[in-house]
Parts: sequence; structure tokens; C-alpha cells
Amino acid sequence: MTGPLKIGIAGLGTVGAGVVKLLAEHNRLLSLRGGRRLKLVAVSARSKAKKRDIDVSGVRWEKDPLALATAPDIDVVVEQIGGSSGVAKRLAERALRAGKHVVTANKALLAMHGAELAALAEKRGGILAFEAAVAGGIPIIKALREGLTANRIEWIAGIINGTSNFILSTMRDTGASFESVLAEAQKRGYAEADPTFDVEGIDAAHKLTIMAAIAFGVPMDFAGAYHEGITKLTREDLRYAEELGYRIKLLGIARLRPDGYELRVHPTLVPKRRLIANVEGAMNAVLVKGDAVGATMYYGAGAGAEPTASAVIADLVDVTRMHTADPEHRVPHLAFQPDRLSAVPALPMGEVETAYYLRMRVEDRPGVLADITRILADREISIDAMIQKEPSEGEEQTDIILLTHRSIEKRVDDAIRAIEALATVRGAVVRIRLEDLA
Amino acid sequence: MTGPLKIGIAGLGTVGAGVVKLLAEHNRLLSLRGGRRLKLVAVSARSKAKKRDIDVSGVRWEKDPLALATAPDIDVVVEQIGGSSGVAKRLAERALRAGKHVVTANKALLAMHGAELAALAEKRGGILAFEAAVAGGIPIIKALREGLTANRIEWIAGIINGTSNFILSTMRDTGASFESVLAEAQKRGYAEADPTFDVEGIDAAHKLTIMAAIAFGVPMDFAGAYHEGITKLTREDLRYAEELGYRIKLLGIARLRPDGYELRVHPTLVPKRRLIANVEGAMNAVLVKGDAVGATMYYGAGAGAEPTASAVIADLVDVTRMHTADPEHRVPHLAFQPDRLSAVPALPMGEVETAYYLRMRVEDRPGVLADITRILADREISIDAMIQKEPSEGEEQTDIILLTHRSIEKRVDDAIRAIEALATVRGAVVRIRLEDLA
Repeated sequence: MTGPLKIGIAGLGTVGAGVVKLLAEHNRLLSLRGGRRLKLVAVSARSKAKKRDIDVSGVRWEKDPLALATAPDIDVVVEQIGGSSGVAKRLAERALRAGKHVVTANKALLAMHGAELAALAEKRGGILAFEAAVAGGIPIIKALREGLTANRIEWIAGIINGTSNFILSTMRDTGASFESVLAEAQKRGYAEADPTFDVEGIDAAHKLTIMAAIAFGVPMDFAGAYHEGITKLTREDLRYAEELGYRIKLLGIARLRPDGYELRVHPTLVPKRRLIANVEGAMNAVLVKGDAVGATMYYGAGAGAEPTASAVIADLVDVTRMHTADPEHRVPHLAFQPDRLSAVPALPMGEVETAYYLRMRVEDRPGVLADITRILADREISIDAMIQKEPSEGEEQTDIILLTHRSIEKRVDDAIRAIEALATVRGAVVRIRLEDLA
Repeated sequence: MTGPLKIGIAGLGTVGAGVVKLLAEHNRLLSLRGGRRLKLVAVSARSKAKKRDIDVSGVRWEKDPLALATAPDIDVVVEQIGGSSGVAKRLAERALRAGKHVVTANKALLAMHGAELAALAEKRGGILAFEAAVAGGIPIIKALREGLTANRIEWIAGIINGTSNFILSTMRDTGASFESVLAEAQKRGYAEADPTFDVEGIDAAHKLTIMAAIAFGVPMDFAGAYHEGITKLTREDLRYAEELGYRIKLLGIARLRPDGYELRVHPTLVPKRRLIANVEGAMNAVLVKGDAVGATMYYGAGAGAEPTASAVIADLVDVTRMHTADPEHRVPHLAFQPDRLSAVPALPMGEVETAYYLRMRVEDRPGVLADITRILADREISIDAMIQKEPSEGEEQTDIILLTHRSIEKRVDDAIRAIEALATVRGAVVRIRLEDLA
């Protein structure tokens, strides 16, 4: 039997420390399962003095993480530094250039530079593995790349940001506002001090970009991803959605079309009876529609030290297996043979086709609804359902909520502009996209 | 590049024909994804004359399926004959003995003889792959064996028989009886003329046996699996369960304990708010609890030509990859190194620990409840919830429904015997197990 796979870990934050801990705890289990032992030989982190709940006393400490990339006694570098550029990127590049394998949970790095890194790995014979970058411990990369390999993937829709899902679940359960739930989540450590990446859909867009690439065989194109967060969602919209039989979730949606692919993160109304509409709290779930298998769904914890470490170690074990295979017969990094990627583009939002929830504040006067429905009809947008509320006592305005059938987004944009220009309509039209996911 | 992987398919029923079709349809897609082409070279089935919606004109027809096992131009045999013995078993054995790879969806064969077949494959250098044997197109074998490899799997709970789940969903939706829903399902072709394997939990027990082996690293032990079907479930029990906040599902449950493992298929009350309780119709879902990752769930179609073919072809692509790896570094067939299996036994049902739903018909007289609760208390079975119904007009009997906390099954058996012996209790006590699945 070959010697152990020798591991260097750069970054000992929550996940890095989790990997060290799980490797130690499951040393015996991993040797029962794997044919080759995993051995931690070196670590590197910003502060050596910092108190950590792990034992790295028998392991070499590298002051410079980049030293791991070239150390002759290291086979695989686990990159846990984070960030889409800087040290993390340099480390991954140098390690791959040196022919080493790289395992990373860094979705920002992959979404921005995944294609170059994969090409580098292929050129130098290393493996770049990133199961932990999407949906934490859920083996979704493996499912997309291997489990569903016989399928043309038609679309993916995922709850891939736990913080946002936690906030939306809590808003619905308690009737509290976005701001107050966010503040509470920050106090409890569920949301970061600067929550932008989570609540603006950027983190989800990183993950979606990675999934779309391996599902459709397209280059990673984070710049082509649309993202809209949950900061503007109101209690009223959550309540109206519920009344109409829907839940609002922050979904990452990628859909392959003949002319390109949609790549978008935004709040979405989903029919309540769909399983994914019932994914609550900080949990993640990814729904994948394959042409042969139909709809499949993958559910679990999308973050946290142990779930993420579970994915990192699965990648390490995969490396022990796959690196002994003929390079040309390995699982391709991005699921498709590197020279056979499709050139179809990510489509601009105006070209996206989906259904819509539209809420507008109108004066309670005859003819208002006729004007609105005429604007929609002129643009071939048909209406699926409507609620018109009685005005409250003493008020002369009321809410109209419309659900449309599927339409092209630029037509809906145009209709919204026309509706907002009506003298009887007050303020902006609230527009939330709706997906049936059937 | 190596030549194509040459495939022989034995059995052209629904799934076998589905594989032929999907291989042809996705020829281009598979070449974009895989590094090695898949080529169908021979088929065998009972009747050559039978009309099938597939084109096998360019492919050799073998009268004797066993000829595929030794044909020098075949690398991998896809066994779609079915049955736990007879030709299917002989074919798999001979093919593996000849050093060929075998891909099968045959859960009965694996549950009964999986360990021997895996050992034979290891001895002769072939790969035995069986993703399609459990939960159709859901890549659950891959998730358990590779994706969750860093976890000690604590338990598995799966809806792994679509027919039973369809019947239970329909009973709940329509209020119809088991018999009438089964008859309707048979008329529509959703249930077989002889539905025993499905409705008695045997099919689910086959699949559970396979999952438990690869989750826990124990030998496949179908004889050690308990199975109880859905034939005795009544509308009343479904309704009472609903009233108490539960749904009844036919679950396959495997749980690792220090003294052995539980391996059981039976109707189970599950809290309504659990995602798995909301899996409806013929869909399958497997909930897996790992110590690092926590709970993850895998959902999709558990049967049908295309979903099953999706899994068979994923296995074929895996074979193209894994067979070029060092044999000692391949993914072990049963997830654990073959010489490192655990010897812990499947536990008898009396030793199982779970919670219970007990329904009994009692006379509406003082002291009845006191007698019953005393019997339970004497056996250290504590009560979690209770419903006592008002007797109907003119009746002098009523239903008592009790939910217990977790207890050892033999104590509950004993309590049931004592309750049934009470003069005030009429007929048998209905006992349905209950799992919180948290």
C-alpha cells in the first residue's frame, strides 16, 4: 500500500479547525473506509498564539501559507483562507502549478477564477476539489458531476444561503420585519456584522455560478449572474404570498435554454406544497431537474464547521482514489471534458422567462383595475390570480396583488413602468419573481 | 485515449430498454462528460420478437444471457434480469469471475448475495456497481459511500418503496381504504398484480439492507431485517395520526448502536413538520444522519425506466473512471475496506428502541384508563400524548390513542399483551411505531 496522503492546511478558522478536528476524531473510521491514510503534516494560519480547540502540536507550523504550495512533503493543500484574490488565489495557483492537489471551500475564488484553476490543475496533473464550496456538507457537487451524469440538466433551484433562509423563515414565523430579524441574527452570531454577501444574494450567486458551470458545461461566469437580495422584502409580501398559497425563498436559479442560460438569485414565490418551500431555518436544499431522472433534491446543513469539514474530507478521500486513475479518465473538474465546454452565454435579466407577483398601491376608484390589466394585456402578460383588498376604514387607497403567468422579464419591466405612470397608482410596484418548480 | 467501454445488457424489460434508449439519446452528452465512450455491443432477452421501443439492430443478440459473461468483446455486463437467484445470480457470478464489471439494479440479488458478489469482484479485479438498486435515480449509494465518507452514519430513514408511499398518500388525501386504493393503483399499473413485495415491505427491506451495509460497514443481512407492510393500516389510524400532528409513512430504518444495529421496515408516525413527512405520491426520499454533517436528505423518483437508467449509466461512467485506479485505492464496493467489516449483529425487533402509537377500543367505564396507564408505568413506558374520544351516540365503547416516549419493543409487546387481557379492552391493540427523526 502507498504511504499516507500528506495534507497541509492553510487557514485555521472555523472550517480549517473543523477539518483538523474531524481528521483526528475519525482517523480510525477513515482508515476503515479509505484505502489510503490521510495525514496532516503542516498547518499555517495568521496567528500561532490564538487559542484554538484543536491539537496541532505534532504538526509543522508554516509561518507563510505559500510555503505549503511548494513543500516537498505535502501532496494536497487545503485552502481555508478565503477571499477571491490575494493569498488564497496565490496559494491555490502555486500549489496546482507545483502539481499538488487543492481542496477548497472558497466559493468566491472558484466563481471568479474556477475555470483558470481547473485548467491549471489539468495541465499539471493535480486535482482541484471543491465539494465544500457549495451547500456545505451536502454532496451536491458529486451529485451533479457524477450521480446525474447521464442527464441533460434542465434547471437547478437552490436555497444556498442559510442566513437568508433563516431570516425569511423567522420573518414568516414571527411576523417581524427584515431589520429586526437581521439584528437578532447578528446578535446571536447567525449573521455577520457586515451581512452584505448573505442578504444581497452575492454568496448565493457564487455558489450558483459554480453549480451552473458543472451542470451545463459552461465556463464559470460570476459576472453574468444576477443577484437581488432579501433586504426589501416586507411582512406584507410574505403574508400575501402565504394567502395565495406560496412561500418566499431566496433561490439561486440556473436554467439551460437553447439560446443561453439563466443565472439568477432573487426572492422567489414557490408553491407551499413543494418540498423546497418547506426547507426552514438555516438549512440548504438544491432541487435539480434532469431530463432522465426528473426532479431530485438534496437537503442538509449549508454551513458550519463540521458539515463543511465533512465535505472537505470527502474531497480528500476522493483525491486518494481519483489521483491513481488515468488523468484522462478522471472525473473532469467542471464535470465536462475541459476542451468540450459550451459557449452559450449567461442571459441578461431582461431575457429571463418567469412568472411574477406584482403588488401595487392604488386609489380605490373605478377604472383602476381596467387600466392595469390593459397595460398587461398589451404586453401579452396574462394574469393567473389576483387579490384586491378592501380599503381600510377611512382610507382611500388599497393594495392590488397580481400573479402573472410566465413572461419575458423585459416586458414585465415595461409594464411596471407604465403602471407606475398611472395617476391612480401610488409609489413603486413591488415585483417578486415566481417559480412553479414542477 | 483508450477505446470505448463495451457493454452487454441482459434483460430488456422497462429498465433494460430504458438504458439502451438513454445511451443512444445521450451519446453526445456522455462523450462531453466522460473521458471514455460507452458502446453497447450485445444484448440478451427472453424474446427477440417482442416489440420494444428501442433500436438494437446494430447490436449482437445473444440467445443465452450467460454468454455475455464470457464474451471477449464485453467489458461490463448490465444485469437487468431480476430475481435473487437463478440466471441473474449466475450471470453476475460468471461475469465477475471472468474479471468483467457488473452493473445491476437488482436489490433482491444484492441484499441476499451482495457480500459474496463484492468479494468475487475484488478477487478478480472487476467492479460491482449498484446505484440503481436503491431509490432509482437518486444517487444515494454514492452519497453514502463517497459524499458522507467522513461521517459515522448514525441512522438512515427512507421512503424507499414508491408504491407504498403512493398508496398511503392517496389514502390520506381521499380517505379511501387500503384495499380500494390498492385496487385502483393496480388498475392504473402503479402496483403489480401481486403487490406483496411492495406492500409487505420486502422490497424496502432489500434496499434498506444494502444501505445499512454501506453506511455501517456491516455484512448484508437481509435475513436480519424486520419487515411489516401497510396492509393493515386503517383510515382511522391515518386520521388520528394527523390529529396528533403526524403522518404515517412506510419507512426503512437502520440505526447503529453500540450493541448492534436496528434494521426494520414498518409503518411509522413522523412529525408532520419534518420534510420527509411531506414526500408524497410515488416519490422516494432517504434521510441520513451523519455525526459531522448532521441530517441530510436525498429525494427523487425511486423507480421508472428513465430514473433507473440514469443511475445505471452513472455507474457505467463511474466504471470508466474507477477501473483505471489502483484496485486498492478504488471506492470499496461496500464502502468499507472488505477485510475491515464490523461484526456487530442486526438486532432482533424485541431489542429495538422507538416510540409508539397505541390505539385500543375500550369500554366507557371508570378505571379503564387507570388500568392501562398502570400497565405501562409498571414497564417503565411513559406517555407523551393521549386522545380519548367521546363514545358515539348509543355506543358504550370508545377509542383511546396513546403516544409513548421511546421504549424497548419487548416491553411494549409485554404491555400490549397485558392491556389486551383487560376485561374492559375489546379486540387487539393497534401498535404503530413512531420516530421523531430529529
